[in-house]
Amino acid sequence: MNFTMKKNKTSNQLSTLHIGFAQINPTVGDFDANTEKIISYIHEAENRGVQLLIFPEQVVTGYPVWDLANKSAFVERNRKSLAQIVKKTRRMNVTVVIGYIEKSISKSRHGRNHNALAVIQRGKILAKQFKSLLPTYDVFLEEIFFEPAKEHVVIPIYGLKTGLSICEDLWEDDYEVKPLAQLKKKGAKIMINIASSPFHRNKGELRARLVSRKAKQYGVFMLYCNQVGAQDDLIFDGRCLVADPKGRILFESDAFREGLFEFDLDLLNPMHELKIAPVQNVTPEIYNALVLGIRDYVRKNKFQKVLIGLSGGIDSALTAVLAVDAIGASNVCGVTMPGPFSSSGSVADSRKLAKNLGIELREHSIAGIYDFKMTDIIANKKHDNLATPEENKITLAMENLQARLRAIELMYISNDEDRLLLTTGNKSEMAMGYCTLYGDMSGGLCVLGDVYKTEVYRLAEHRNRISKVIPLETIEKKPSAELRPNQTDQESLPPYSLLDAMLYLYIECNKTPAEIEKELKGKTDIKLIHDVIRKVDHNEYKRRQAAPILRVTEKAWFGRRMPVTNRFDLEG
Amino acid sequence: MNFTMKKNKTSNQLSTLHIGFAQINPTVGDFDANTEKIISYIHEAENRGVQLLIFPEQVVTGYPVWDLANKSAFVERNRKSLAQIVKKTRRMNVTVVIGYIEKSISKSRHGRNHNALAVIQRGKILAKQFKSLLPTYDVFLEEIFFEPAKEHVVIPIYGLKTGLSICEDLWEDDYEVKPLAQLKKKGAKIMINIASSPFHRNKGELRARLVSRKAKQYGVFMLYCNQVGAQDDLIFDGRCLVADPKGRILFESDAFREGLFEFDLDLLNPMHELKIAPVQNVTPEIYNALVLGIRDYVRKNKFQKVLIGLSGGIDSALTAVLAVDAIGASNVCGVTMPGPFSSSGSVADSRKLAKNLGIELREHSIAGIYDFKMTDIIANKKHDNLATPEENKITLAMENLQARLRAIELMYISNDEDRLLLTTGNKSEMAMGYCTLYGDMSGGLCVLGDVYKTEVYRLAEHRNRISKVIPLETIEKKPSAELRPNQTDQESLPPYSLLDAMLYLYIECNKTPAEIEKELKGKTDIKLIHDVIRKVDHNEYKRRQAAPILRVTEKAWFGRRMPVTNRFDLEG
Repeated sequence: MNFTMKKNKTSNQLSTLHIGFAQINPTVGDFDANTEKIISYIHEAENRGVQLLIFPEQVVTGYPVWDLANKSAFVERNRKSLAQIVKKTRRMNVTVVIGYIEKSISKSRHGRNHNALAVIQRGKILAKQFKSLLPTYDVFLEEIFFEPAKEHVVIPIYGLKTGLSICEDLWEDDYEVKPLAQLKKKGAKIMINIASSPFHRNKGELRARLVSRKAKQYGVFMLYCNQVGAQDDLIFDGRCLVADPKGRILFESDAFREGLFEFDLDLLNPMHELKIAPVQNVTPEIYNALVLGIRDYVRKNKFQKVLIGLSGGIDSALTAVLAVDAIGASNVCGVTMPGPFSSSGSVADSRKLAKNLGIELREHSIAGIYDFKMTDIIANKKHDNLATPEENKITLAMENLQARLRAIELMYISNDEDRLLLTTGNKSEMAMGYCTLYGDMSGGLCVLGDVYKTEVYRLAEHRNRISKVIPLETIEKKPSAELRPNQTDQESLPPYSLLDAMLYLYIECNKTPAEIEKELKGKTDIKLIHDVIRKVDHNEYKRRQAAPILRVTEKAWFGRRMPVTNRFDLEG
Repeated sequence: MNFTMKKNKTSNQLSTLHIGFAQINPTVGDFDANTEKIISYIHEAENRGVQLLIFPEQVVTGYPVWDLANKSAFVERNRKSLAQIVKKTRRMNVTVVIGYIEKSISKSRHGRNHNALAVIQRGKILAKQFKSLLPTYDVFLEEIFFEPAKEHVVIPIYGLKTGLSICEDLWEDDYEVKPLAQLKKKGAKIMINIASSPFHRNKGELRARLVSRKAKQYGVFMLYCNQVGAQDDLIFDGRCLVADPKGRILFESDAFREGLFEFDLDLLNPMHELKIAPVQNVTPEIYNALVLGIRDYVRKNKFQKVLIGLSGGIDSALTAVLAVDAIGASNVCGVTMPGPFSSSGSVADSRKLAKNLGIELREHSIAGIYDFKMTDIIANKKHDNLATPEENKITLAMENLQARLRAIELMYISNDEDRLLLTTGNKSEMAMGYCTLYGDMSGGLCVLGDVYKTEVYRLAEHRNRISKVIPLETIEKKPSAELRPNQTDQESLPPYSLLDAMLYLYIECNKTPAEIEKELKGKTDIKLIHDVIRKVDHNEYKRRQAAPILRVTEKAWFGRRMPVTNRFDLEG
């Protein structure tokens, strides 16, 4: 396609604008690769006749970079990359909007730099805009790293008065400073917002409604570009948007997919509204988010292969399936490690799963080393004149020992073969401390730590509808840690459907016990609610030592900040 | 002493003020105990004729409380405590200034409450003051939890125009909002600042200089009250201060000690200036801070006893000595766990240390289980058709295995006997990743993780000057992990004196490689500096899973926020 710029016949005003959203997946600190990718997108956009190409927030550096934002070698390298990008546009027609980090010239508090965007035309930076609203809540800590903008600028792009802003600037309703209101005052007809806005359940809908509302409020076209990809615990879902001055959503790009998304914006007669419908089923979205989260963590940290301890239960099975969908069966290895109290299903169901997935399965029993260690422990106790354990009594220490002997086996393989160990605990277990430090919590990435157990079942069913990979036995068996004879989760925990409802209300909605009781009317009593909350808070010390946990809810553990030392008691 | 209020004979102005600083150690969430302690201090102060009794920031709740600040059950309980305290003063003469959390009445962003103080007189709240400047950097995240004050008030206390502020409000030079300047404008003659300001090396001097400078700048008396005690990684050192309008420090209370500190302030002829001298030797301060840090973590988390793996090396020896000084020898148990490559000193030196300290020592070899596990691993490798390890070659996986087998032993005892396991790694090791996840990093509290190796030696020498507890052999031996034959730290790491200098410049001073090279002129080259920085950044994934680490430097790991996924290369 050749470059075209259509003008309205009866006036000098541009009638259509060919927009490109470079919904790309950068890697934090990988300047060579990010710059190369950005330049290739600019070339492609130029070739396709894109007039206005919009990249997400901080694509030059990757996002979030945390303290790296104030390491001068890092910031210099990012400026060098930006200069390379600018130079490449010298003989091009496309106008580029791109996010990077700008060095602060003011001697600001703690020497913070700016979260910035540049508008580039024909080898020159036409304008720069810093971010005003620096999100500092939940997983965001931008006040720590960045200095806010003093003002917002409107510049002409193809003769159109265009207002510039970055991510949180769009969420101005929550702040006293109103960046978009400033832009409107300055006469903006189009507003561009570049973002690195992470996914959580329903986030796509939330964003679309906001972009629509803001477009309508100010009577402007709103062009919104978001990053795709994952960085540690955060997963970015993309979904760039165009809204017209009536608040109609005209365009939305794909979720979880990298690409150059084009849209011809008819500035005079914007048509074909897309409906923003409440998401009927968030499960497929969460599934895709987790796949992307695993893939990017593995790839960006230069691993090739992963390792998973398979218990025969649903958490480890789902983790293995997600891993296969993320990086391919040949890169996934499962290890089944039956112990003294494992059911026969533990091995048999893991075998079935491995066969269905086509992954390597190793069978390494821990029964022998468990016996050896217990004999050792009893001998030591006798030698130290300490009481030896009652016969046939399985203590918590013995349960944890089994989990830790499995971790030792897995970590040996991980170290020996350079395989990333994935941990398999879910959010409900991690909430209640139903997991072993240095045992099943061991690993480099926790895949399901932000997924409630009931959602684990929904994800498994969703995936099995595509192809039956998770054995029915695994789905139907009673959840159990199998660390003592005839153990089941439900001996220690309320039924998961009830537990998850309580956890959701407490963790995500920050409800009081009385409010939770009211919401779950008849299903539970205040004593159980207190007991659950007490366990959630008391087990903070375990989560403090957890691996990064892929975030898929609005309140993941990493965005929840609770003291370990905490004697608060709800009944006190 | 009876209550007295001296007035100047020739005017109506108060001539002296009997001030009490309630430098107390609250526990987060322990409302009953905190309230009881606060009330007993008020009674004692009243009995001693204190006219103005000042408590630290958030003593009602403990500090910091993080997300608890916005849990309504928590905030309600804190208000109930405050009401109890207010009621107790009904028939008293003493005026009390105290920190708590006030419920926000505004529908503020994310519903944040206020970090507040109350001035209490005769059963009534005379005034409330919220905090304006909410520190959000390093270990502080108050913007997340609190809503700032809109203004600062001056109220008469004993007829003196008294300005109120909280902690960071004093550090106004770094901000656009100037709370103390507001107070001066409103005619304040005395300013009270209540704080929970954590310790780091030289913090006492830094604070005294600031209080002095601010008193002089505004020509006011400055009364500064700080918390003492530890909460998770943070250690509060107390050191309440009085400065006169010329900036002279008239009074400083003891560091690291709870108590009611009294001072008779002569408002007309303030005398007896204390000199603020640069601290000549920070080592004893750091020692005291670590002792307090251990004691409070153990006590506040309701542990009685601790457990330490003793390697015969200096880190574990120092950790044991600190633990004994914190909670007493009878509560400390050491375990020496010789492995296949341990030196004879490993056990012998641990025995000497245990004898010197009078602590229990257990000897549990890991040699047997290491052999068992390696035999098992080789059998599994043969079964899985994988290459078996070269004979006599000790791989990284095998080294880590030894560290992890020790962790399994220690965690079994920890779980079985409810003993808190202390980890013993130092800051230099944790910087370089010279530590094993789920191995020597296992435990509930990391004592030396913010102490460079060279400081570890200084702390050991400091303690040995008081009484010779650490064996000379332990101090003089070459540092070694003893995980393969004839291993020493210096095979893998630069000499500690050089390494620590580089780490200090990189981590605490945020210097670039070129700047570090310049500062260490002649002692090293840029290649080694790049290598060290690369290792520090690359090992973020290990520290992410570390136990809470007692903070004694200005930049501890918890206040340093780096991505795990990070491909930035200084030479790229």
